[in-house]
Amino acid sequence: MELALLYSGGKDSTLAALTLDSFYDVHLVTAHFGFTDDWTHAKTAAETLGYPFETVELDENVAADAVDRMHADGYPRNGIQQVHEAALEAVAGLGYDAIADGTRRDDRVPTISRAQAQSLEDRYDVDYLAPLSGFGRRAVDRLVEETLDIEVGPSDTVPKADYEGELRQLLIETYGTDSVGEVFPEHEQTYVHGLLD
Amino acid sequence: MELALLYSGGKDSTLAALTLDSFYDVHLVTAHFGFTDDWTHAKTAAETLGYPFETVELDENVAADAVDRMHADGYPRNGIQQVHEAALEAVAGLGYDAIADGTRRDDRVPTISRAQAQSLEDRYDVDYLAPLSGFGRRAVDRLVEETLDIEVGPSDTVPKADYEGELRQLLIETYGTDSVGEVFPEHEQTYVHGLLD
Repeated sequence: MELALLYSGGKDSTLAALTLDSFYDVHLVTAHFGFTDDWTHAKTAAETLGYPFETVELDENVAADAVDRMHADGYPRNGIQQVHEAALEAVAGLGYDAIADGTRRDDRVPTISRAQAQSLEDRYDVDYLAPLSGFGRRAVDRLVEETLDIEVGPSDTVPKADYEGELRQLLIETYGTDSVGEVFPEHEQTYVHGLLD
Repeated sequence: MELALLYSGGKDSTLAALTLDSFYDVHLVTAHFGFTDDWTHAKTAAETLGYPFETVELDENVAADAVDRMHADGYPRNGIQQVHEAALEAVAGLGYDAIADGTRRDDRVPTISRAQAQSLEDRYDVDYLAPLSGFGRRAVDRLVEETLDIEVGPSDTVPKADYEGELRQLLIETYGTDSVGEVFPEHEQTYVHGLLD
């Protein structure tokens, strides 16, 4: 069976790919808005890991709405959640047997409820899998440490292909340079260079 | 890392073993009360699959409390939940790096909340994994069909090693033969004979 995994080049979605690998033909799909070429980092990671890769372009209005929401909230959570849901809808429309993401049990965002999962499955006739949703933070960290060659650093310096880079840029364009620091707290990001031997 | 998976010989816990196989040294553990030898069915399935197997014996009071609860409720859900929680506690105490069960996203019972999972992890210094908790019913059914050689039938005729057989027997001993039909609705059970080629 063919599966499309929403992929950022980070540790969670990479680990999700490995857990699904025994059961599905895994394709890595990076959603982007076309504002930056951040998605090429995910492509590089996908090529290193040996998975087929494609992108799906989301509507610019999704980014604009998310940025407005984040600016109004003063934190990114709800805006990120909106973008993640739009990305899952886009991937669900690609025609695969199953779709998946790297959501973990202890993530505050994004979260996909059971009702949302079932709605997605019914509307697109696709299975939605969250293979890490039964894994806590420490379990994921231990598996990453044993399995992946990663780079960790502040989220504005580590190469990444999730929506955050594009949303940061749109936030600056719309609300000015200071708005990024107001919305996004400093946090660590990871980028996957490949598998450990 | 060494992982103990709560194992019944059924399709869910077998599929859980396969998902964890790439990351952990998986040991299958069947919890029982010592009332019947149903656990030997799980041992046979484990041997066929090639995983190390052990049993853990639960306190008889856990079964007595569960049976009282099921009889009072007139349905099995809360009693089964109590036994599952006790079994996870017992497996958590065995000293493995991680423990797991075959809970699925769409299961009404047993369910382990995020708070329960974190409590278990903190008290026993163990990672608790529910590798199928991000898989819906149809996804599990499709993977089982592609992967496992199973036998499906009414739950009183298919060999199985979950708690239900022992709880049924204790229910009869405590509340009489008719009590089983009052508490347990007819449902299908599966037993895993092995992997498909």
